Amino acid sequence: MFIAMNNFKVRPGQEAEFEERWRTRESYLSDVEGFVHFALLKGEEPGDYASHTIWRDRAAFIAWTQSPSFAAAHRQGGSVSQVLDGAPHVRLLQSVITEGVPIG
Amino acid sequence: MFIAMNNFKVRPGQEAEFEERWRTRESYLSDVEGFVHFALLKGEEPGDYASHTIWRDRAAFIAWTQSPSFAAAHRQGGSVSQVLDGAPHVRLLQSVITEGVPIG
Repeated sequence: MFIAMNNFKVRPGQEAEFEERWRTRESYLSDVEGFVHFALLKGEEPGDYASHTIWRDRAAFIAWTQSPSFAAAHRQGGSVSQVLDGAPHVRLLQSVITEGVPIG
Repeated sequence: MFIAMNNFKVRPGQEAEFEERWRTRESYLSDVEGFVHFALLKGEEPGDYASHTIWRDRAAFIAWTQSPSFAAAHRQGGSVSQVLDGAPHVRLLQSVITEGVPIG
C-alpha cells in the first residue's frame, strides 16, 4: 500500500470553490493499473485540504505519473491553483505495518 | 470516511527502533466499533513517519478516543516518544469526495 498526498492551503472564503473544482474535474484514475482509491480530504484547520490517493504499490504510482492520464488530469490544475494560498506540498508514504480490512 | 493521522519526526538513526516499537505494541483497535484500517506509513524525507487510521466516520473516532481501548493503547506511547525529534502532530481529515473501491 502506497499513499500519495498533495496538501493544499486554500484561501479564506474559497473552500466551496475549491471543492467544486475537484467535483467537476475529470480524474482519469479509474482505469489506471494499480489505482485503488482517491479521496479529497478536508482538515480541521481553516483552509486545510489534501488529495489522498491509495496505490497498490510505489511502482504503480510512478507509472501513473509518467502516463498520458497524469498529464491530462494535471492540465486542469491551473484552475485549482487560483484559490490556493501558496504551492501544494506533496508527501509520499509507504506502508510499513498494516491492520484491519485489506485495502489495495 | 474519516482519517486520523499522527505525524512523527524520528531522530536520525532511530528509524528501525521506532518501527520495532510499533510492531511490538498492542493496538487494541481490531474490536473497536467503526475502525476500518490502520497503517504505519514511512515518508520519503529522513525520519518522516505517520500513523494513519481510517474510521467509518468522525463519531467512531471520537468514541474511540474516549474509550478504555484508547487509554490502554496510549499508555505504551512513552516508549515511542524517546526516539522522536519533537512532539507528534495530529491531523484529522474528513472525506469530501471519494472514488475507487469502497473503504469503510
